[in-house]
Amino acid sequence: MTAELMFIGTELLMGQVLNTNSQYISRRLQALGISCYYQTTLGDNMERLVQMYRTALNRADVVITTGGLGPTVDDITKQAAAKALEKELVLNSQAAEMIKAYFNSLGRKATTNNDQQGYFTHDSRLLINHHGTAPGAQVPAGEGKFIFHLPGPPHEMIPMFEENLVPFFEKNSQRVFKSKYIRIVGMGESEVDFKLKTLEQGNNPSLSPYASPGEVVLRATARGHSMAQAEALLAPLVARVTQELGKYIYRIDDDDQGSLEDTVINLALLKGQTLSVAESLTGGMIGAALAGVPGASKSFMGGMIVYTNHMKQQLLSVPAQVLNQHGAVSPQCAKAMAQGALKNTGSDFALAVTGVAGPGPDDRGNPQGLVYIAAGTKEKLKVETFHFSGSRQQIRKRTTLQGLNLLRIALLHDE
Amino acid sequence: MTAELMFIGTELLMGQVLNTNSQYISRRLQALGISCYYQTTLGDNMERLVQMYRTALNRADVVITTGGLGPTVDDITKQAAAKALEKELVLNSQAAEMIKAYFNSLGRKATTNNDQQGYFTHDSRLLINHHGTAPGAQVPAGEGKFIFHLPGPPHEMIPMFEENLVPFFEKNSQRVFKSKYIRIVGMGESEVDFKLKTLEQGNNPSLSPYASPGEVVLRATARGHSMAQAEALLAPLVARVTQELGKYIYRIDDDDQGSLEDTVINLALLKGQTLSVAESLTGGMIGAALAGVPGASKSFMGGMIVYTNHMKQQLLSVPAQVLNQHGAVSPQCAKAMAQGALKNTGSDFALAVTGVAGPGPDDRGNPQGLVYIAAGTKEKLKVETFHFSGSRQQIRKRTTLQGLNLLRIALLHDE
Repeated sequence: MTAELMFIGTELLMGQVLNTNSQYISRRLQALGISCYYQTTLGDNMERLVQMYRTALNRADVVITTGGLGPTVDDITKQAAAKALEKELVLNSQAAEMIKAYFNSLGRKATTNNDQQGYFTHDSRLLINHHGTAPGAQVPAGEGKFIFHLPGPPHEMIPMFEENLVPFFEKNSQRVFKSKYIRIVGMGESEVDFKLKTLEQGNNPSLSPYASPGEVVLRATARGHSMAQAEALLAPLVARVTQELGKYIYRIDDDDQGSLEDTVINLALLKGQTLSVAESLTGGMIGAALAGVPGASKSFMGGMIVYTNHMKQQLLSVPAQVLNQHGAVSPQCAKAMAQGALKNTGSDFALAVTGVAGPGPDDRGNPQGLVYIAAGTKEKLKVETFHFSGSRQQIRKRTTLQGLNLLRIALLHDE
Repeated sequence: MTAELMFIGTELLMGQVLNTNSQYISRRLQALGISCYYQTTLGDNMERLVQMYRTALNRADVVITTGGLGPTVDDITKQAAAKALEKELVLNSQAAEMIKAYFNSLGRKATTNNDQQGYFTHDSRLLINHHGTAPGAQVPAGEGKFIFHLPGPPHEMIPMFEENLVPFFEKNSQRVFKSKYIRIVGMGESEVDFKLKTLEQGNNPSLSPYASPGEVVLRATARGHSMAQAEALLAPLVARVTQELGKYIYRIDDDDQGSLEDTVINLALLKGQTLSVAESLTGGMIGAALAGVPGASKSFMGGMIVYTNHMKQQLLSVPAQVLNQHGAVSPQCAKAMAQGALKNTGSDFALAVTGVAGPGPDDRGNPQGLVYIAAGTKEKLKVETFHFSGSRQQIRKRTTLQGLNLLRIALLHDE
């Protein structure tokens, strides 16, 4: 079974929006064993859309569209598909109800513009959108083929893909794929690559690394005629990678959605420990990451954002002597910040970060990317030094990841 | 003049790589007044590539490819183009020299694999790659048309695009485009659309909205034979939108890169005011956003992350009576948090947020999405109530945007 993707929206052609749906859907199709040979981005233009639907339906069994389901006159994704299939759109009472219910849940009223979101071909199966106004649809396209319409915003598209497309493809695919995502922090991509050179690497199972700022993800994939066969092929490879990379691995999952902050919060909950933060250059990013984990409040208490020297003294009682003698960007300051957080919040563990996000060096001449991170308890507090590369935002992101990793290691070693 | 893009590489179809080249090239073409109607992603497959070159050359004046210029057997971008044009590839001595020189500069030797990177059609103009081994090429495709080959890695592609494609398009473009990006917070997309229905909407200038969580961006675009003509067409439209949407507009820019936090920090700097935050459900997101603006430390001091009730009392002196009687999710608590932040930090302005991010209601039965935001000074502190929809993360994101917007309005009205 093959799928072809159509990303619809003039905003994509004008570069206003970065198309992340492409990567998401591609990865999922790959994992599901569905081949995809063409992906086309095109604008909200009737003639070009109709033409592209015809071309795509000639080449693939399933055509997936994203975008163009909104309430404005620009949004003609469904209309163009109907035209290509020589069908009519009619008001779907179920869709009209869904749209009304969605607006009710917001305490707002649908405008007359929203009406057009309720029109579908008579044979469309609706796909529920829990996070927006536009229902999606599965539209029969003849010869056992289908068009699937999904909305453009990823937070709407992703759950709809998972709830509707995944079961559809699982039922229709002959091959079974099994993947494990091995997540690594504290080691660069080329280092990981070098370490794994010794592993005999084949096509089935396969091992491919991809990097995002501050971490590396390895995808190990095996295919088979049954899930049991795929899993049996995969297990030895994952075991060998674990042996090679050991403590740099912070989680191994069936998908790549699990985050480092999930790992930290769950570890803290498991150990019955509470956490606090003291953040300078990250300005709250670490707290925001921890607080983003559902149920975090049982272990994450809070902390202090101390962006200025004055705040470091005022809110965390960092001694003036430390700031004068060593400066705010120093291991001494990181340690004093962590101690201040432990004292003010009464948490079991604290994480403190201070450094130079840039652009450029700080007023004491410390280079951009120099960061000190302190993590641990009142009794056992470790400070580490980092030299991060990249832009201001990348340095802050890397500080967040490395900080969370040090907190994870501190929690692990607390016997 | 029209351009069409071909992104070549199986790694794109498998979702291993996020395609950021698409957005980059699209934006640049847009700014240069070059229309682009189709972008296709396809794999390293000879038959499909040859076919797509023919289709693209039929539809557009210029075809730009990225990827597939590497030294491996998979890399057949140039070979397929030559085949589509019925030409031969021959060793280009200038290219061979470039590749050798590039490896010399790294202190390494080219492998025999690298030889294929030196092959081009005899009529190709080489494009120098300062950041990698693969030279690009401008290949004549008949009838005044051209194929441009660029490498896939963005740090190689971008400078080559700027050095070669930009001058080419500037010479060949007849039209000039001018856009303004009008950014709106506190109003939904369909509401914006409804408000603007009264504006006569044409094709030149045109007005199109696009939404991201918590905000709407309107792109107003005009085209003309000169920049002056385009600007003259655009100005009245922007004026009418400003009149309609007034206080919901937080900035109008030539691009869509400026953020709400930029606006807040710059306004605070302009007014010589300092800022602090007190965050519950956002856990540091607001602080992180403010601290992300280069130079923020001159106005953003820091604040408190108070994720638990205990922390609200401990770090912000929220009275026990407020927490017992009204609960942590209450206007009284938001106000007390802001007062605590003003007192602890000594800042001129404070922003405090408390609410239910979910999933589900809190233990007092407050519904998911109920959020109270307090913003202002010691003398004048305003609290507003919000009912946000969406997931836990969206509610936190919307709280951040609305919080920053209230801080912006408070700063504006401080006479």
